[in-house]
Amino acid sequence: MMHETPMTPADMIVAAADAFATLRERKPRVHVITNSVAQPITANLLIAAGGIPSMTISPEEVPDFVARADALLVNLGTLDSERRSAIGGALDVAGDEGTPWVLDPVFVDISSTRLAFAHEILTREPWILRANPGEVAALAGEDGYEPVVADRLALEAVSTVLVTGAADYATNGSRHARVENGNPLLAQVTGTGCAGSALTAAFLAVYNDPFVAATGAAAVIGIAAENAAQSAEGPGSFAWRLVDALHALSPADIARRARIV
Amino acid sequence: MMHETPMTPADMIVAAADAFATLRERKPRVHVITNSVAQPITANLLIAAGGIPSMTISPEEVPDFVARADALLVNLGTLDSERRSAIGGALDVAGDEGTPWVLDPVFVDISSTRLAFAHEILTREPWILRANPGEVAALAGEDGYEPVVADRLALEAVSTVLVTGAADYATNGSRHARVENGNPLLAQVTGTGCAGSALTAAFLAVYNDPFVAATGAAAVIGIAAENAAQSAEGPGSFAWRLVDALHALSPADIARRARIV
Amino acid sequence: MMHETPMTPADMIVAAADAFATLRERKPRVHVITNSVAQPITANLLIAAGGIPSMTISPEEVPDFVARADALLVNLGTLDSERRSAIGGALDVAGDEGTPWVLDPVFVDISSTRLAFAHEILTREPWILRANPGEVAALAGEDGYEPVVADRLALEAVSTVLVTGAADYATNGSRHARVENGNPLLAQVTGTGCAGSALTAAFLAVYNDPFVAATGAAAVIGIAAENAAQSAEGPGSFAWRLVDALHALSPADIARRARIV
Repeated sequence: MMHETPMTPADMIVAAADAFATLRERKPRVHVITNSVAQPITANLLIAAGGIPSMTISPEEVPDFVARADALLVNLGTLDSERRSAIGGALDVAGDEGTPWVLDPVFVDISSTRLAFAHEILTREPWILRANPGEVAALAGEDGYEPVVADRLALEAVSTVLVTGAADYATNGSRHARVENGNPLLAQVTGTGCAGSALTAAFLAVYNDPFVAATGAAAVIGIAAENAAQSAEGPGSFAWRLVDALHALSPADIARRARIV
Repeated sequence: MMHETPMTPADMIVAAADAFATLRERKPRVHVITNSVAQPITANLLIAAGGIPSMTISPEEVPDFVARADALLVNLGTLDSERRSAIGGALDVAGDEGTPWVLDPVFVDISSTRLAFAHEILTREPWILRANPGEVAALAGEDGYEPVVADRLALEAVSTVLVTGAADYATNGSRHARVENGNPLLAQVTGTGCAGSALTAAFLAVYNDPFVAATGAAAVIGIAAENAAQSAEGPGSFAWRLVDALHALSPADIARRARIV
Repeated sequence: MMHETPMTPADMIVAAADAFATLRERKPRVHVITNSVAQPITANLLIAAGGIPSMTISPEEVPDFVARADALLVNLGTLDSERRSAIGGALDVAGDEGTPWVLDPVFVDISSTRLAFAHEILTREPWILRANPGEVAALAGEDGYEPVVADRLALEAVSTVLVTGAADYATNGSRHARVENGNPLLAQVTGTGCAGSALTAAFLAVYNDPFVAATGAAAVIGIAAENAAQSAEGPGSFAWRLVDALHALSPADIARRARIV
């Protein structure tokens, strides 16, 4: 599943810029299963990055959409019985077709039902698991988060784990990196986390190394956030400026400004 | 169902401006059955145009809302069993009350389940079918789109068909027009297509000729998009500027700037 | 349930500013059960005010989320069978835990199904009922609205009733106040009513007197709206400026500008 070429941080920045250029060119279809509160901003940020979103969660329809998609995001927000069934069907198709997919286990630290379901899904080995520290700790069965918890989870889940935060931490158990781009206003706008996960899926659609896809997508959304924050007057103006900034971003900007260490 | 008065393009522009003036004055209630990703921008653009949206999709409630509505939009995004049942109930009430309605068969070219359901709905003869070229081709059972495909579909469905694109094409089989207003940024913001269909339903609520309602609504959203694009810095700022621009538009603007040929 | 200290309008303004300061400091978790069209703006305004929203409506998950929440909003938009069951479960937990909650009976004046369900919920004695005049009249079984109808409803429901409008009217049957802050653009943006109810729940989470929570939240959203309207060019720019304005508001602004009479 992964190309385990040793890469320096400088290599990873070049790879991130390349992957972004390919995304703009190929315009991958990304099927997104997420909660309704995150849908509009996720769709708009995905389009701004160059992807083509679809978002149905109807179990009868999801297989058709995933079969046509280049990547899949499974976000656990709002887990009703229909959505669980849609997720199961989506992952069956993704497995058959070899479609890369990302898991975003929102709020597994709050609901035991979600946590149990997330453990089930982890057995299907997501290409990338993107979560905040509390969610990573809950999935690993730990009380608190430390980077080694993410490392262990990555090994157990045979996956790249991207832990979001003031700086993002990426690990697949043997490779590790921090992405230092970003802005605190991201946490003030609902749905930007899910949008980041959808962007990660778009990167996976065009770049075969999950570790690069995870760090590259994190750098891209982080740089867009830095640009948006420069002229934002608060979280309201930051939200639409983030869309404009992502739309305006070029691969050269990524090469110049990504802070992957 | 239609007033088949022969109209010149100049007549159609006058009629579009008149219809818009009536919409502003009467503030029609439009019930919108659509996917959750499109709901916020659809509601906000409908309000900006002068309409009053309602959006419940609960099968138990839809009949009450449609009975009070002046027009109905059925958008096939996210087709679960509940939504199908809501659509059936909505169309029963619309049929009994003579409520005009618009069908927006989103993504029927991707899902065979949706296509089959759309064919069922077409037998109920929507007043207007508003779709993109790929969807029109799929509904007509053709591999590719050409205007004659839309003409044939209009005759078969006893409906006005509005095909959206760089220029929109309207046909009811015997009458034909192109609406040349618009801006490419519309395609960069999720939900604007559904919002255009909801605006079409609002026009139908106040103007009894579906051909004029379809072309008039297309011109209005297109002119608003042209105004919004002038100061937009990307799709993020375009989205809210579109709402402001539609809100600021007057019937005189339509009379002066509509390009219906 | 209430502290029936006699308060002058000046006292209420001081209390509103205090409650807002506490909200900023404590960052209460508010679980919001609402319709999907209102979710994004409700979440973003709640975050801008200082709260932490969660929004799942899955019946299996709602109990876990409400158990962790400091307050609950039940908005009746989109009432399907799943949402009814989620509301029942949420209110069971809120009752057991003593979690304060707000009822927003959207559109009970249009759907008899909703009205019947709202009457059922009223027997659980919401801490605050926040509704427009038409909804208050429908709940009270009256054809038209007058303040005395709200007074009677408050006594029957053992609740504080906040009636939204050009000026908001608060009553618990024995205490009465008007909140004169606000701007007509609020009615031009979908979801701001639900967001106001969610903000009311956030105030309840940190302030034990429902009458002060209702009037304080109404003043805060009203002042934010006044600020946003100053530079808005229409409802599109007003929507994001409202988020920015609420985010920028300080307790001192409330003390200086609240018009509670």
